[in-house]
Amino acid sequence: MVTSSAARRPETPRQYDAYDPSCPSRGLFDRLSDKWVGLVVSALGDGPLRYTDLARAVAGVSQKMLTQTLRTLERDGLVSRRVTPSVPVRVDYELTPLGWTLMPLLYAVKEWAEVHMAEVESARAAYDADR
Amino acid sequence: MVTSSAARRPETPRQYDAYDPSCPSRGLFDRLSDKWVGLVVSALGDGPLRYTDLARAVAGVSQKMLTQTLRTLERDGLVSRRVTPSVPVRVDYELTPLGWTLMPLLYAVKEWAEVHMAEVESARAAYDADR
Repeated sequence: MVTSSAARRPETPRQYDAYDPSCPSRGLFDRLSDKWVGLVVSALGDGPLRYTDLARAVAGVSQKMLTQTLRTLERDGLVSRRVTPSVPVRVDYELTPLGWTLMPLLYAVKEWAEVHMAEVESARAAYDADR
Repeated sequence: MVTSSAARRPETPRQYDAYDPSCPSRGLFDRLSDKWVGLVVSALGDGPLRYTDLARAVAGVSQKMLTQTLRTLERDGLVSRRVTPSVPVRVDYELTPLGWTLMPLLYAVKEWAEVHMAEVESARAAYDADR
């Protein structure tokens, strides 16, 4: 957006372009394009979850992969980790305000896969029958 | 959707759940969670493209990866391939009606990465400074 104030400033706001492999947003898009990111962020859309509950919600994820996914989501500012000093220590994960802006987008892709699975299966059968 | 007709049928429509690793929609969600799928489908949101134009739009994709991505998108019924018997033969790729329903969702994730890149970079810097 060009405003008179922006026009006066020599530094214009940086434009990001995920089509450009040298742009950091390409790397971020690549990170968001990860099924574990999508499933973890979608699951946290129901509210904060403990590690074990998250592992149950996102069935099939290994402990290593879940821990790694949560750590990068935390570093990217999408998920926060809250430690309750109880015995045993309780650790909850929840979406940050930034994470909440992403959640509906990834959830929509997950939902698309569920809603359109039968159509995709028909398309695959037709494709394979043609060859 | 439950209708009286559906209620009479013994077979209910199959429910898909991408959280379930044994559900085919998990595999489909995994496929859609791929940066090349996201970038190719987003690029085709501007209209049909020839192979070479697509390769230019999605910079950094290898020929092997682009060909493979297009083939699976075609098999999944998301992209169609149109061959014009000119000299040289012209091949265009375009989204199918099913692909058009997915495009805005993947485009939104790409756009999110571009719009929020600076916030994610700040979060990363804060995270790293804390450790």
